[in-house]
Amino acid sequence: MIALIGGIGPLAGLNLARIITEQVKVNRDQDHHPWILMNQPGLIPDRTEFLLGKVDINPGDEIARQILICERAGCTIAGIACNTAHAPLIFERIREVLKEEKSMIKLVNAIDEMVKYSEENLVQGEKIGILNTTGSYMNKLHSGPLRKAGFEIVDIGLEKQKKLIHEAIYHPDWGIKVQANPASDETLTRLQDAINFYRQNGAGAVVLACSEISLVINQIDCQGLNQIKPMNILARSLLESYLSEDQTL
Amino acid sequence: MIALIGGIGPLAGLNLARIITEQVKVNRDQDHHPWILMNQPGLIPDRTEFLLGKVDINPGDEIARQILICERAGCTIAGIACNTAHAPLIFERIREVLKEEKSMIKLVNAIDEMVKYSEENLVQGEKIGILNTTGSYMNKLHSGPLRKAGFEIVDIGLEKQKKLIHEAIYHPDWGIKVQANPASDETLTRLQDAINFYRQNGAGAVVLACSEISLVINQIDCQGLNQIKPMNILARSLLESYLSEDQTL
Repeated sequence: MIALIGGIGPLAGLNLARIITEQVKVNRDQDHHPWILMNQPGLIPDRTEFLLGKVDINPGDEIARQILICERAGCTIAGIACNTAHAPLIFERIREVLKEEKSMIKLVNAIDEMVKYSEENLVQGEKIGILNTTGSYMNKLHSGPLRKAGFEIVDIGLEKQKKLIHEAIYHPDWGIKVQANPASDETLTRLQDAINFYRQNGAGAVVLACSEISLVINQIDCQGLNQIKPMNILARSLLESYLSEDQTL
Repeated sequence: MIALIGGIGPLAGLNLARIITEQVKVNRDQDHHPWILMNQPGLIPDRTEFLLGKVDINPGDEIARQILICERAGCTIAGIACNTAHAPLIFERIREVLKEEKSMIKLVNAIDEMVKYSEENLVQGEKIGILNTTGSYMNKLHSGPLRKAGFEIVDIGLEKQKKLIHEAIYHPDWGIKVQANPASDETLTRLQDAINFYRQNGAGAVVLACSEISLVINQIDCQGLNQIKPMNILARSLLESYLSEDQTL
């Protein structure tokens, strides 16, 4: 069974579960693959605030605890429906706790899978824009590994990153986390400005590098940019892991 | 924490979780209420086939096992995102197993909550149409308790029940369980015929009495019929239970 750590935010978790469900074409309930979606956000500190040093508690501890609960419930594979939680400072802490607890669960890394996918599907050296949280931006969560894989990253700069992207996700009155379907005009205008910036600066692809962005991307004109969707890629990887495991049983 | 038993079908489970998430207005992830969505449909026999005597294994045993897993994971309240699973033959079996296992979890009954809601919100003696599976229809799952509460049920008859409603949900090529968004033309035409039948026969309200129906109802003209949505009502009841429990801690 697959463990999906959701709740960060709840709609992003539901979205990952929906993608997994819809990727499997079956005609009876019984043929769907089994998963548990854990939505227990209360104890998980904000990932960006931790990465920016505004809170001291590493969200990785609580995420690991939730993965262990899923393992005890029968899960053998896990994925986390939050890009920012994949920052090494958090993700490595999760791995550490799982190791301490002698967990056997296979934790799939959405960033690794995204890089593999980009290598397989984009033109070598392609210019890429990234839509992520400021926590991810500062930590080079996506840009670092993509650069290492030979891609060129179009840097939007910290000011635009905060104003056009992070606020679109997090603004307490009109950000995606409070209003996704439809998104607020403010959110859509800002994200559109970010897309336009990337397009004008030669990007051929854009990474929807925060799970919330996927929830509203259909409401924006992506101007022909190739969309890299880490959550869809994660969904596919989780299913592949599940199916290959299923065959070895 | 709330346990949501999904998977029967998977999209209906996701829908219940989404309703719960959207009913809570908060502006940070951490303020959302905790739940686990269990999607493990492989071992749960089809509820209608059991009720019609086509399979011998009571789905209640496996549903109870999944509720117990959620309880061990920390859940204190449970709901099942499947109307048909509330048929007494299945639901009472679930209660039995939970009792045998000394479970302390509070299992909310979606049918009881639906009747309560109807008593509070509909005109006394109102004529009601029902969109449910043939398993629920034959067992009078919704019509029985609603009649007992003083409402008049517009009976569509077994033939139309099978052709217009059950097939719209279950048809292996074009039913809602294989295609919900958008639903197939065939599904929409048949459900529209059912709605028209209820309207013409004086119904003032219609119960969306199979979780799958809620997924497509916006694609149909309900002709002003008051919509009774057991899954929305269940979501509200689960949240109320959760909040009242929270206050007593």
